Amino acid sequence: MADSKGIERGEENITGIILGLEKSALEKWNSGDPSGYLDISAEDVSYFDPFLPRKLSGIAALEAYYAPLAGKVRVEKYEMFSPTVIASGGMAVLAFNLSSHEGNRIQDWNCTEVYRRGSDGAWKIVQTHWSFVRPGLE
Amino acid sequence: MADSKGIERGEENITGIILGLEKSALEKWNSGDPSGYLDISAEDVSYFDPFLPRKLSGIAALEAYYAPLAGKVRVEKYEMFSPTVIASGGMAVLAFNLSSHEGNRIQDWNCTEVYRRGSDGAWKIVQTHWSFVRPGLE
Repeated sequence: MADSKGIERGEENITGIILGLEKSALEKWNSGDPSGYLDISAEDVSYFDPFLPRKLSGIAALEAYYAPLAGKVRVEKYEMFSPTVIASGGMAVLAFNLSSHEGNRIQDWNCTEVYRRGSDGAWKIVQTHWSFVRPGLE
Repeated sequence: MADSKGIERGEENITGIILGLEKSALEKWNSGDPSGYLDISAEDVSYFDPFLPRKLSGIAALEAYYAPLAGKVRVEKYEMFSPTVIASGGMAVLAFNLSSHEGNRIQDWNCTEVYRRGSDGAWKIVQTHWSFVRPGLE
């Protein structure tokens, strides 16, 4: 869903790789499967969402947090808005807005995902930040 | 405010540099001066906070957004909790929780700041994400 501005031209298309990883994990999430995000999160990942009282640290904590959510999420449709990727060296940050449609309800999200390329060439998330758009404000 | 675990030992202390930049900008912000953050934000910065309807893109947009806030913020005291910095190549991500004390009111924040080192060696923010901790949930 990157627009033409979001696509890097280079020896490798980092924007395309990052967006592909994110969308693949998101689509699993939307069908009730947290394993897509867990598979692409690093050992030393840290994580924020609107339900946690503080930052969560490490893949084991994220696995424990997501485990009870398996099978609970059912997002029928999503729209990702104006994703941008900025990369330098072995890191890349993806930032986007997301609208998730669950039945008649639409939840709007802000999302930041920071990816790091490992020595094996695989990109993994080291920081996730999900937040509500304008919570409690209309 | 990094604890000993947060401090990298290496030829340069990236954690210390990043935390120093962030705290300096935050302390200006807390006294009503947005210029500290603007000074360390890159041309291509993108930005989320709980008051915006979508991602804000570019330093000019951030300057315009912050301008009316000059002189309006007065945070008497803040506490930064468990900041972590992960760096690779020319990028670094800082993630922390923050409690800001304004009079009798305490606001708890999640914050992600992604810094990129420029060709001049200076670190500048390319992605900022501020969100409320557990908005509307107690």
